[in-house]
This record gives sequence, C-alpha cells and structure tokens, in this order.
Amino acid sequence: MSSSAPNSDRKIVTGPAGYILEDVPHFTDDFPDHPTYPNPLQDNAAYSVVRQYFVDEDDTVPQKIVVHPDSPRGTHFRRAGPRQRVYFESDDVLACIVTCGGLCPGLNTVIREIVCGLSYMYGVKRILGIDGGYRGFYARNTIHLDLKTVNDIHRSGGTILGTSRGGHDTTKIVDSIQDRGINQVYIIGGDGSQKGAAAIFKEVRKRGLKVAVAGIPKTIDNDIPIIDRSFGFDTAVEEAQRAINAAHVEATSFENGIGLVKLMGRYSGFIAMYATLASRDVDCCLIPESPFFLEGPGGLFEFIDKRLKESGHMVIVIAEGAGQDLLAESMEESTILKDASGNKLLQDIGLWISQRIKDHFAKKMTLTLKYIDPTYMIRAIPSNASDNVCCTLLAQSAVHGVMAGYNGFTVGLVNGRHTYIPFYRITEKQNKVVITDRMWARLLSSTNQPSFMKQEKIHSNQLVGEPGTMKW
Amino acid sequence: MSSSAPNSDRKIVTGPAGYILEDVPHFTDDFPDHPTYPNPLQDNAAYSVVRQYFVDEDDTVPQKIVVHPDSPRGTHFRRAGPRQRVYFESDDVLACIVTCGGLCPGLNTVIREIVCGLSYMYGVKRILGIDGGYRGFYARNTIHLDLKTVNDIHRSGGTILGTSRGGHDTTKIVDSIQDRGINQVYIIGGDGSQKGAAAIFKEVRKRGLKVAVAGIPKTIDNDIPIIDRSFGFDTAVEEAQRAINAAHVEATSFENGIGLVKLMGRYSGFIAMYATLASRDVDCCLIPESPFFLEGPGGLFEFIDKRLKESGHMVIVIAEGAGQDLLAESMEESTILKDASGNKLLQDIGLWISQRIKDHFAKKMTLTLKYIDPTYMIRAIPSNASDNVCCTLLAQSAVHGVMAGYNGFTVGLVNGRHTYIPFYRITEKQNKVVITDRMWARLLSSTNQPSFMKQEKIHSNQLVGEPGTMKW
Amino acid sequence: MSSSAPNSDRKIVTGPAGYILEDVPHFTDDFPDHPTYPNPLQDNAAYSVVRQYFVDEDDTVPQKIVVHPDSPRGTHFRRAGPRQRVYFESDDVLACIVTCGGLCPGLNTVIREIVCGLSYMYGVKRILGIDGGYRGFYARNTIHLDLKTVNDIHRSGGTILGTSRGGHDTTKIVDSIQDRGINQVYIIGGDGSQKGAAAIFKEVRKRGLKVAVAGIPKTIDNDIPIIDRSFGFDTAVEEAQRAINAAHVEATSFENGIGLVKLMGRYSGFIAMYATLASRDVDCCLIPESPFFLEGPGGLFEFIDKRLKESGHMVIVIAEGAGQDLLAESMEESTILKDASGNKLLQDIGLWISQRIKDHFAKKMTLTLKYIDPTYMIRAIPSNASDNVCCTLLAQSAVHGVMAGYNGFTVGLVNGRHTYIPFYRITEKQNKVVITDRMWARLLSSTNQPSFMKQEKIHSNQLVGEPGTMKW
Amino acid sequence: MSSSAPNSDRKIVTGPAGYILEDVPHFTDDFPDHPTYPNPLQDNAAYSVVRQYFVDEDDTVPQKIVVHPDSPRGTHFRRAGPRQRVYFESDDVLACIVTCGGLCPGLNTVIREIVCGLSYMYGVKRILGIDGGYRGFYARNTIHLDLKTVNDIHRSGGTILGTSRGGHDTTKIVDSIQDRGINQVYIIGGDGSQKGAAAIFKEVRKRGLKVAVAGIPKTIDNDIPIIDRSFGFDTAVEEAQRAINAAHVEATSFENGIGLVKLMGRYSGFIAMYATLASRDVDCCLIPESPFFLEGPGGLFEFIDKRLKESGHMVIVIAEGAGQDLLAESMEESTILKDASGNKLLQDIGLWISQRIKDHFAKKMTLTLKYIDPTYMIRAIPSNASDNVCCTLLAQSAVHGVMAGYNGFTVGLVNGRHTYIPFYRITEKQNKVVITDRMWARLLSSTNQPSFMKQEKIHSNQLVGEPGTMKW
Repeated sequence: MSSSAPNSDRKIVTGPAGYILEDVPHFTDDFPDHPTYPNPLQDNAAYSVVRQYFVDEDDTVPQKIVVHPDSPRGTHFRRAGPRQRVYFESDDVLACIVTCGGLCPGLNTVIREIVCGLSYMYGVKRILGIDGGYRGFYARNTIHLDLKTVNDIHRSGGTILGTSRGGHDTTKIVDSIQDRGINQVYIIGGDGSQKGAAAIFKEVRKRGLKVAVAGIPKTIDNDIPIIDRSFGFDTAVEEAQRAINAAHVEATSFENGIGLVKLMGRYSGFIAMYATLASRDVDCCLIPESPFFLEGPGGLFEFIDKRLKESGHMVIVIAEGAGQDLLAESMEESTILKDASGNKLLQDIGLWISQRIKDHFAKKMTLTLKYIDPTYMIRAIPSNASDNVCCTLLAQSAVHGVMAGYNGFTVGLVNGRHTYIPFYRITEKQNKVVITDRMWARLLSSTNQPSFMKQEKIHSNQLVGEPGTMKW
Repeated sequence: MSSSAPNSDRKIVTGPAGYILEDVPHFTDDFPDHPTYPNPLQDNAAYSVVRQYFVDEDDTVPQKIVVHPDSPRGTHFRRAGPRQRVYFESDDVLACIVTCGGLCPGLNTVIREIVCGLSYMYGVKRILGIDGGYRGFYARNTIHLDLKTVNDIHRSGGTILGTSRGGHDTTKIVDSIQDRGINQVYIIGGDGSQKGAAAIFKEVRKRGLKVAVAGIPKTIDNDIPIIDRSFGFDTAVEEAQRAINAAHVEATSFENGIGLVKLMGRYSGFIAMYATLASRDVDCCLIPESPFFLEGPGGLFEFIDKRLKESGHMVIVIAEGAGQDLLAESMEESTILKDASGNKLLQDIGLWISQRIKDHFAKKMTLTLKYIDPTYMIRAIPSNASDNVCCTLLAQSAVHGVMAGYNGFTVGLVNGRHTYIPFYRITEKQNKVVITDRMWARLLSSTNQPSFMKQEKIHSNQLVGEPGTMKW
Repeated sequence: MSSSAPNSDRKIVTGPAGYILEDVPHFTDDFPDHPTYPNPLQDNAAYSVVRQYFVDEDDTVPQKIVVHPDSPRGTHFRRAGPRQRVYFESDDVLACIVTCGGLCPGLNTVIREIVCGLSYMYGVKRILGIDGGYRGFYARNTIHLDLKTVNDIHRSGGTILGTSRGGHDTTKIVDSIQDRGINQVYIIGGDGSQKGAAAIFKEVRKRGLKVAVAGIPKTIDNDIPIIDRSFGFDTAVEEAQRAINAAHVEATSFENGIGLVKLMGRYSGFIAMYATLASRDVDCCLIPESPFFLEGPGGLFEFIDKRLKESGHMVIVIAEGAGQDLLAESMEESTILKDASGNKLLQDIGLWISQRIKDHFAKKMTLTLKYIDPTYMIRAIPSNASDNVCCTLLAQSAVHGVMAGYNGFTVGLVNGRHTYIPFYRITEKQNKVVITDRMWARLLSSTNQPSFMKQEKIHSNQLVGEPGTMKW
Repeated sequence: MSSSAPNSDRKIVTGPAGYILEDVPHFTDDFPDHPTYPNPLQDNAAYSVVRQYFVDEDDTVPQKIVVHPDSPRGTHFRRAGPRQRVYFESDDVLACIVTCGGLCPGLNTVIREIVCGLSYMYGVKRILGIDGGYRGFYARNTIHLDLKTVNDIHRSGGTILGTSRGGHDTTKIVDSIQDRGINQVYIIGGDGSQKGAAAIFKEVRKRGLKVAVAGIPKTIDNDIPIIDRSFGFDTAVEEAQRAINAAHVEATSFENGIGLVKLMGRYSGFIAMYATLASRDVDCCLIPESPFFLEGPGGLFEFIDKRLKESGHMVIVIAEGAGQDLLAESMEESTILKDASGNKLLQDIGLWISQRIKDHFAKKMTLTLKYIDPTYMIRAIPSNASDNVCCTLLAQSAVHGVMAGYNGFTVGLVNGRHTYIPFYRITEKQNKVVITDRMWARLLSSTNQPSFMKQEKIHSNQLVGEPGTMKW
C-alpha cells in the first residue's frame, strides 16, 4: 500500500489488486503534531454495550460494486463514523451551520441533528446558525442554536436558518470565521454551495487556520454524483404523486384531456423519472438528458395525437430543465411569451410547452390542457420518515468526521454506507439520468413513449451521461 | 293559506303571519290526473322500523332564521325527502345523469348515490350516463350505469361521465331526451348549467312531456345562492391548506420572502376567505368582492412594504377573480404579459400580480416571491368524509323529489335541511362574500390587512353584496 | 311579548304566534346598575367598513325549523355575536381557560382563538390557562397565555393546558376564582364539565361575584343536545375512514375475513353512523341506541354467517357503547375475559365481541378476524380546516357573549347560527342517534344489515330517542 | 476460478483474492441441452437505444462492502437483470403467482409488475393467480391475470389474490403445478414461505420438471437476512409515525401521561427501531433482540418513574415480540389476563405490559396510559412511491431471472443492487437488530433509555445477533 499525493489537492492511496482510496484531507496533514483526545462517546451510557463501536481506521467502501471475479478493486472512499481519538476539546468548539440554495425536504432535520449530535455525543455547547445563506456570514447576526431551539424544527419544511442563492465571498466569509473564532463549519447545500465550501476550505488552509469545513450535500434534484441519493429526494418523489394524480383525474374527465405536470430538475431528470415510475398514470416523461422535438414524424405532437386517439387522454411529466434548447430557439424567433421587463416567464418550460401544444392542436381538435406546477408545494413539505432517518445519519456522520480531524469533505451515502468524499469528486460533474441505462429503458417501457431521437443520433453514440449511481 | 300563481313560472303559496312558500313545480300542475303508486320504500326492510319515515306534505324550511319576536315569517322552501306516493313505476323509469362544467370534489359520489338511490330505494334498473356534459346528449353514446359500475367511483376525483363547458343546445337535448324515452334527468352543474336545466325543463313542459328535470348544484366556488354550502367546498378548503402551508414555508425561508397562492373563485371569494380563516398564516386575502389597488397610500404595495419590514415575510392569498379590473386596465396599456396567439395568460391574476410586485420592489429591496397555483390539485381530489355524506344526501333528496313528482327544482341545503328550490332562485344571482358582513370583518381582523378601500367608497355605501348564506 | 322568570334558573320570554325565547342570564339580572362601556370593536380598523356589525338585541334563532304554514313558532335561542355595549373594561379583565375530559380535535384551536379574540378584539391582556382540568384551579399553578404562547398550538392535537376527568370541587374552584381575582371563566368540556360549569356559575352568583362563566361544548361523540354538531366531529369522522379502509383491506385479503373497527361513542353512535355513511365498505354498524343480540334467528351471528357466504368478507363498525348489555350479562356468567386486578378489559366491547365471534365460528369455518381500535389515533389529531373555522367562531362567540354581559351559557351552533344556550338545556339529556329517524334508515339501507330487533319491540314503539339535531 | 458443488444444494464458485460466488441453480444444471431463444427485449422499442442493456454473465455483487486495502474479496451474489438468451418461448409460458402470510404494503404492486413484466417485456399471455396462499394450489380455482385485471391494483393495500398462513403441502402443490402445466412459479412470502418455495423447487427438480421457482421476499418486519430492506418496510415506518404522534399527544395532554404503541416485529425490532429514530418523540423502545426486565434497579418501572418525574409524560414503543419471556413467565403464575377459551389475548405484549404498568403505579401515582395498536392500519395501506419503485424492480428482476433460466432463487437488493440469492441463504436464519451495533447505540442515544441489561450480561459478551444488513 502506498500513498501518493503529488497533487496537494488530492490524497490518493493505492493498494493490492488495483485498490484505490480517494481519501479526504485531515488535520494532521497540516498540523502533524495536533493534539488528540479520547472520544467522549466512550463515556456515553448509550454506547457502553456496543462492541467495536468505533470505525476501524482502515474501513473503506468501494464505489463500484458490480464486479467480475477478476475485476480490479477500483476506487474506494473512507467510511464515515466515530473514531477513538478526536481533534477537538468539547469546550473549545465553536461550530456554525449554514444552509444555501433552494429548499429541500429535510433541511431542518439536518440542522437539528448536527446540533443534537454535537451536543449529546460530543458535549459541544457553542453552535451558531448563519442567517440566510453564505452572505449571512458577513452581513447578518448569527443565530444561537441549542437543543431547545431545534427540538421541533424537523416537523416543519424549509429551513429555520433561512437560505439564499449566491452571496459567496470567500474572503469575507473566512474573515468572519476567523474573527468570530469559529472552528467547525457545516455547509448544507447543492453543488454550487459545495464548490463554495471547497473555496472556503482552501482559503482556511492557506491562512493556516485550524478550522474544519464539512459539506452535507443538498439537492432535491438528486444531481450530485457519487452518492446513492440525496436527502429529501424520497419525500419529493412521494409528494409529486399528488400532482400526477390530479393531472390524471383532470385528463380523464375531459375530452382529449391532457394533464401536464412540471417537476423539479434543471439538469437532471431523476424526480421526473422516479415519479413516473412510481406512478402508473404517466404517458410521457420529458427530461433534460433526453432531447426531444415537437414537430414532424417521431416528434412530441405526433405522439400526443396518437395517444389521444388511442385512449382519449394523456398525462405528461416534464422536468423543468427539459427542452430548454427548443425554448431558447423559439425565443430568438420572438414569437412567444414576453413580459414587460424581461424574460423571466419565458424560462418556464411548462407554460411554454402548454401554449405550444394548445396552438398546435387548436385547429385540429378540441383539447383541454391543464398545467400543474407543484414545485413549491413539493419543496416546502417536511421530510418523510425515511428521509428523516437519512438526514440524521448524514448529520451524525459529518459531526463524527469533523471531530475525528477529517476536513474538506462531503458526507455521502455510497452503496448504502456513509463515507467521506473529497469536495472535488462532488463538484467536478453532475449526476444525470443515463438514458442508455436500464432505468430509463424501464421508464420508456412503462410509458410506452417513443425515444424522440432522430435516427442518426441513436447510432452516433453521442449520448448524454455515463452509468449513474442511483440503482434501487 | 292561499296559493297564487299568476306567473306560470313561479308557484308562491302564502300563509299566516307573513308565511311565504316558494314552491317548485309538480307533475300534477300539468297532468292533474297523473296516476300515483305506493312508495316502494314501504316494503324496504331498512325502513320498516322507522316511524314517520315519509316527509309530511306541509313540511317547509324558512330561508331566514335570525328572527325577532315579531318578525314576519318570510320565505320558505319545500322540505326534501320521500313521500308516501310516487309518480313513477320503477320499471318505467329511464333516468339519465349528466355532469357539466369544471371539476369539483364529490362529483363521482353524487353520480354513485343517484344510481344507488334509484336502484336500492326505488328498484329502478335503467340508468344512463351522458358522456362529456350537455353535448353528450346529442353527440355521443350514453354510458350504462348500474350498481357495479359505480361501486368504487367515489374513491376517485373527477367525474367518470366526463364533463365539458357549454354545448347546451336545448332543442337537440330535449329531442334526445324524447327520442331515447328518458323520463328523469339529473343535472349536476353550476349556475350556468342550472340555467340550462331550467331551459330544458321549460322545453319539456312546452312539449308536454312527462319528464322530470332535477338539478344538483355544483360549484367549488360556493357561488350558488340560497344554499348553505355546495358539495366539495369543505374538501377544497381543506386541500387549499397545503398550498398555504407551502407558501408560508417558502416565505419564511428567504429574505423578504413572499408566498402568493391563487385559489379558485371567479366571482366569489369564499374558498380564499375560508382557507384564510382556517389557516393562520395568511397576511393578506384578496377576493373579487373587495376591490383593491396597488400603488399609493392604502394600496397593496404599501401594505406589502409595511408587512415585510415588520415580520420579514408575507403570505398572500388571491382568488382568481380578484383584481380583474386592474388587470384589464393594465392590458389596455399593453405594458405587460403577452403571448403570440392571444390573451390567455393575461387572465391569470396570479402571474400578473406576481410580476407587478416583483417589478415594483425590484429597485427597492431584495425580495423572493414564490407563486403557487394549486387549482387543479384541489379540484381533482376525491371528496372528504364530510362531503361524501353531503353528496349522498343531496343525491337521495333529488331522487326522492323526482319520484314524488316534483319537477324543475334544484336540491339544496337550507339552514341545515334539504329542500327543493325553484330553478329561478338558484340562477337569478350569485352568492358572494358580503364584505360588510361579520365574516369578512373576522378575516380582516385575523390577517390585520387594510380594507384597501378609498375613503370615499367606505362612506358611499355602494358596496357589493347582500347578507350571505354561509354562516357556520 | 312578556318575560316570565318565576324559576330563578330559567329565563323564558314569550311572544306572538307561540314564540318562546329560552334566554340566558345576564349581568344586569344581578347587578342592574352595572356600568357599560362602548365596544372596543368600534375602533377596530377591520370592522370599520362593516355596516350593522353588532348583533341586534332582538336577534334569536329558532330551534325547530321544519315548519308548517300554521306551526307555532316555538323555542328560540339568543343569537351570539358582539354587542354595542360591553360590561368589562379591557384592563380589568382577568380571564381563565380550562379544558376538561377526553381529547378532541380542535381543543388547541379553541384555546388559541379565545386568547386571540380577547386580545385582538377586546384588548384584554391578562389570560390564564388552568393546568390539567378542573383540579388545576386549586392544585396547580396557572399558565400564562398570550398571543405568542398560542401562535402555533392549533397545528398540534391534544390540549396545551392538559386535561383530566373529574376533580370538580365547586367550593375550591370558586375560592380560587375569587382569590385570584378571575372574572371571566371559559370552560371547554363535555356534558359532565358543562354541569360543573353550571355549578360554578350557581356558586359564583350565590356569592354575588361579578364573574362570567361560559361553556364551549366539547364532545367528540357529538352527544350534546340542541347543537348542530360539536367541534372535532368532522375531523373524527374523516380520520375514522382510515381504520375502516384498513379493515376492508384486511377482510378482503383473507378467506372469510372480518375487519372489526371500534369507534368512539359511549352513549351515542354518531361517529360510527357517519363514518359508515361516509365510507361505503361497512357491512354492519352497531351503536348504543340500537340494541342487538348475537345468537339465534335475526341475530348478529346469523347475519355474519350470511354475509360471509355471500361475499366472503365483512366489515363491522361498533361504537364503544354498543352491546354493553350483552357484555354485562356475559360478565355475570363470568365465562369470559378477566384480569388480575379488576374488570378494565372487560369493558372493551371490541375485544369481547371479537372473541365471541371467533368462538362461535371456531367449529364452523375458518375465519380471520382483525380487530382495529383507532380511538386514540383519532382523538389526538389536529382539527381539519372545517373544524378550525368552527372552533374559531365558537371561541369568538363565547368571548363576545361574556364581554356583552351574558352569563351562565354555552355557545352552540343551532341550525347553522351561533347562539347562547342556557346550561340546563345542554346538560339535561344527551343527543342520541334516533333509530326511527331517516338517517338511521339510510344507514340500514346502505349496509343492508338487519335491524336486529325482536319483532315485539318494533311494534311496541318503545324506542330510544327523539328526533335528533344532526341533519346535514 | 473454479466451481465446486460437492453439495448438490449449493453452487459455490471461487476466484482470485478470496472471491466467492454463492450462485443459484440454473436450468442447464439439470437440462444441459435445454434450448435457448433470443431475448424478446431486443426487439422492444424502449430498449433500442440502450447500449449494453443485458447484464454481463460475470456480473456479481459483493455481500460485504466495508473493506480494508488487503481484505479478501469474500462472498458475492449473481447480479439480477435480463440476459441475451432466454429459456422459455413466450407462448409456452404458463406462469402463476401466489402471495403467502400476512399483509404488507406493496403486495399488489409486486403482483402487478410481474404480470406487466411478463406481458410487456416477454410477451407472455398466460398468467394465473393462486387464490388464498399455498392451499389455493390444490383447494381453489385459479384467477386469470392480465394487464387489465392488474391495472389499478397497486392503489389498494392487501393482495387481490388473497393470502393465508400455512397450507403448504408440497406434494399436492407440485401435483397441481404438474397437472395444470405451470412452468413458472412466483412465490411472494416471508421466510416460512421461502422455505416452502425451496421445498417446491426440490420436489420439482426431483420429478425432473422444467419448472422455474422464484421467490420474492416479503416481510414487513424486515427480518429476512442478506437483503438491504424488504418492500413495504419504508411505508410501514412512515405510517407508524401516526401512531407515535398520537401517543405523544395523548401523553402530553394528561398528568403522568404514557402513550404506548405496539408495532410489528415478532423476532426483529426493525420497524420499532426505525420508527423511533424517524420520530423524535419516543422515550423508550423495546425490541425482541434487547431483553429487559420490569422490577428493581435498572428495570423498566424504575425508568418510567424517572422519566415521568423529569418530564411529566412518556412515549413507549414496543415491538410485538419484545418481552415474550416476561409474558411467558407471568402466564405460569397465572396471575394475569385470561380468557374463557384459551390464551390468545395473553400473547398481546402491549395489553399485558399496559396492565402491568398500571398495576405497578396504581398505588404510587395518578397515571394515564393510552395503548395504541396500529398494526392492521399499517399493514393494510398501499405502498408509498419509494416502495412502489422497489416492488417494480423486484418483480422485473424475478421475471428476468426466470426467463434467463435461473431457478430456485430469491430476488433481493444487496448493497443497492438487485441479485439472485439461493433459497438457503434467505431461510437459514433471521435478520435481527444487532444491539451491539451503532444503529442501536444511536437509538439508545436518541431516547436516552437505559440498556435494561443486568451488569453481568454486558460483560459476558453473550449478546444477540451479528452485524446486520440494514445500514443507511
């Protein structure tokens, strides 16, 4: 086994039979003589009966687990969990939590469980909430967090800390961290926010600060790579069923009824795909990864025409990022939706495609199209039981990792095990539905929709994506 | 007691102490010697233990029940329920059911219970469903309905018969009724459809047909006068809570967050008002009956500004028919939303006002507005338990009335009792929220919103509406 | 119009045409010169646009509204609502709220809205919660209540004040009221608690205290007379559907499957009846008002045998108070369930009848019986939207009445209007399902169950109940 | 790589670096010259764009994935999915589906998706449902299943085929299979039923029949080993929250209120544990794997006393199989619950422990205990979205495996990948909560309950279980 880190950003450890560990930074990388302390969990009654409670230093989890008898062992990630020695004294810890980006079911549960984990397990007393996302570090007062403050917050959707997009100013943020004496930073956010976390970590390291920076990946779209699924995704797919059911009822109650549901998914169609698979009422699912066109043979209009003639009604699910190329094209022609001040409404693919369908069929047949956009109703609900457990374990894993001296990592579920993943693996690309994969074939088979691909594309092999990590 | 019917359309009976009965037509008005038969319910085991099962011929229900010791007795309606003699032999009945207009929770329950009522209680075997609203009478095949067909339909939203707007051609419809030999027509629809029912009844009478025409009032907006509440209203108010909760979560999670929810209500703001009262998270409720303006002192923008400064977030509920005057005005200026083919999108007050708010505050403050339109998700759900019972009793009342020879009536709950109401009373005006009534004052008190009235209007007494009939 | 009150407890006012007003006591009965003040609502912005906001002193609501042209006008109750003059100065008010008896959806909403009503509408600042029911008056500290304390409590089931059965010691309670200087007492409870309220009122009057005592009737069973329905009833019927659905699924999945659901209803079977009517899956509904027997022709076992042979499965709903005579009988024989310390388990009719059914059919056929008792899951949920509005109006009506000097009354919905009802009318008997009424006939017709009556009883006319007040 | 199968029941393949494949039987084991056909999926439009749609013959999935750099590779299972060649011609297939044992959310979805998978993907037209579990093979008529029959069944809980316990008569079942010409048998059931499946497979093989036997593991308790989680488990944990919430509301509304919830779990406490972790309201969770005692220091009564004194209320969750030793002991003393005919009620640990708690505290304090048993309400609901997808993939995996000639296997999710697992691995032991594992420590930490272990036991290391397979 040999460790090679010529690139200071990446810690790669290799072993026999092609074993590779993509490790995360550790306090000892920069502070080799950093003092350690016994893990306070050793004195916790709850853990007294647990043999081998602490994670073995060598525990790792493989990224690829469909293997052949003679496969090389490939990439592994470090297993999350408590270690026997910790790198913080409880009384010295000043932790902060920040939530960034859009809402996602479970945010409050993650906040709650970081606070509970730090308090109950490690005796940490000083925990701050950052108000309203990254800019809260420098533009707002912090919020005091303790067991009482967070006791019931998991019952509500949203985030008690508030959130925002943007506002990332690395220098100001790290100044604030330094000035306030914060030494643990927990960042709950999507890929953009994780890039911000990486920048903070880099700056912290540059300044030689003893500050731990950990990310908890948040994406309702499930577009973060490597990890099995993101928290809130289950809840979102469940809640999306309501909108699809409503679309189905509307569609079947009117002559040539079409129910069109827009779901979240700017770049990845996972929610649309899983909601379609979980429901059995969808006739057509359109996602960003699978291009489609409207007019002519093999196009969407032809399929709508066919399906309405067959069964008299139709349910279409469209991810918000699907068909953006068509929408951009049509905007140049400036034939469609406009508003006084700008182009905001133009970006709503659901409104746009609803109008296009109505226009196209206006002369041909009476058609009743109902457009449903449940986005904010889905984002804003509290997480379900499954996501609640998921959030709890993510939060605890993050806390264990930080206390154990790991740094610059995102926690994530890899093949059902919690791991610490280096930031760069999370941010270097997006998780996408692989439309050459079996899950998408299952969807096509379930909706019986055409592939909407022009023949030349199918053979050109220039298809989006690579094998995904979602694999129920 | 004397009966006066100079106007052939209206049957008014008067009595002592100012007693007035606005009666409904009866088979014997046109066919004085129409044969009668014993009510089959007399042989029904379920009714064998019920004393005085049949409604007394003289039973009526007062419209106004807040009275003074010396009040005149006022208008009454005929009480619904089974009579001892019926005017149809079971084997001779050919009934049909049609659903018209938009969806409303409970449609399938009403259909089911008309079929069950006719079959179980009166032994009727031939029942037809009309496909897709009024035009189904002449443009479509009918649908056979029996106990098996309707057994589970109440679990689904929508209508198994299909529905549509318009398509009312009195001549063609009555031709179809006559040609098919239909002698009982049950029409489930809103005020427009009840007008259609009145026209059908008039034509049927003109042709001298022995055909009963009964209406079951359907309006998710609760805009039908006289009656206490329409079926589906309870379910709609309940379901609207989800959208308001989501708006609240979105609003509180962002800086200067505004959650804006559009609810049903073209001409009447009942759903918006009751949903606001049932929730406790709404800061401003805008309905068609209460005019408002945007700019200047006492306007909406000023109130938004004030509320955001006070509490940092805000939830606005707007009925779809609110502010249509503002919208129409702004269209003339053609400053706002347009689409290629017409004006459809312009009519969405929710989208329009969202944009106006964003534009107004664009230079003043960072503001995050989330617009939620749950309309189709509310309309399409199955009715809740309370509405299920409500639908059952309406359907049974209609069947009892028709079998007992009453005709040209709408069934309706008046002060908690089921009654038969002449069509003209249902269609001559709309039920509206009375903004000078206590319920609206309760709402204003609960949201603490201004009245948005210009000072002169308050004193001019030229206010919309008269005392409403909703009075929980 | 003449007022006669020879009986000091009852205030009866009569008028023309048989008009009777059963009035409630008023401060001026005992304190004729009690000072009055303008109602603060007159200065409330929310009410400024409302014409005729205040209830006319003569407004009353009839109890009986199915009338004949020449009916006598009968009993009326005083209409609830704000009056122009009030009998308390806001700063002098010290109000208290107590919840008694079992849980019911909506308790917290009533508490919240009494606090909001007193604060917002009347500027009252001093409001106490009594901890844990009547005994909290003398055995516990009080709980401070204000707008902030109650802001979110309606989202939770149960009661934040705590509750208990019994503990009513009139002397100690009135001592506490007197000693603490409380002058408004709001009592939320069932018929037992309303009797307690009457005793408190009597003692208060005897001592010559200027203390208002108002009751808000609480009974999930809907067993309080006069009023249309009690708060929480709608929510309970809705929630009961879950248990019935589960029973249906279990029953249909097994050979000769029986799903048996016990619902609330010690003396009144309203929840069982309405839950059965709202569902369509119940084969047999057993309630306290309708006696039944197990063995022999016309008995329950015979019906079960018949229904299982017909359709292979069966759902039975039983109110907790049904069949108590059978259970008592069987206990004397001491053949059945016993426990070490007493008879607690014996009182569960659901467990008992499940065992009896299993025993009876043990030798005859394979039968799978699943017993579901959802009682606590129903009681403990928050109220739905409809009940939320209902609770709000009850609470506001109580507050208006107390401020206006009325005393010794229960607020209640009578024919859809809020009224003040003297205590004795609420407590003198229980509201029961009238099994000779049409609603029960509807149920029998819907389940197609036998009447379980022995022939002689049907003709003897010695049947339980009189026409009920529930009449959707 | 070498294959060793000295034991005819087990197919073990070994490879480099400690690689072991526990393979499943295949048609070619017994019929080496069995003809094969191209997979019809190759012609399916939905799959035309999917590269590498078919699973590689060498794809396997490791059982253990927490590894060290130098770990041996250990046990693997064969990856599920479609193969290029199939062993059945579509027209020759006569498939049957049977559901056995208790209800579990998702049964109907699995049935539906086997039918859809066989029909859509493989063009199979003849599919039979076996009525009412194993005994339906020989004692009942079969049920015809096609796309139309199963279209909406996933919306209902339970199983449309009916189910039963026991009734397994291998000879009669295989006679029936042989006589009817069935050649594909899909068995959905728990560990007992999977043993039955193994016996059927053994007999089929003994008789030399070309019949495929596949199991789909069904256990709401999650007590089947190897697999990540069983279908319906997520839904069950979600639904259990309702009961826990109700218990919490009841407990907090009464003085010394205890809410006690019994959840499923005869031998494994997974539902109780996850429901406790997902909720945050549970003070004590009792499961079969963790013994406890009532009296004396460190016992349950002491803990109840302590918790009530601290916080005034308490929620206890108990798995149905917990404390059976205590219950058995107390029965010998015959001090407690008895019934006339036997001991059925005695087995309800919830009723028993409720009584014991009440008895114990009867003299000490006023205590209000509410016992909730939501078992049948949980079992009977339809599966949620997540379980719906889970059921779909299980069903499709089973169909692919059978068509590809694999036999005598159970499909199961192993580390997030679908695999074929030999029957013996599924049935040889039960999956149990490992109380020396971190998940249980998390629970203890979250409830802050004692371990209820006597000191000597903790040190003796004689603890139940080994590392579990549930590992979110």
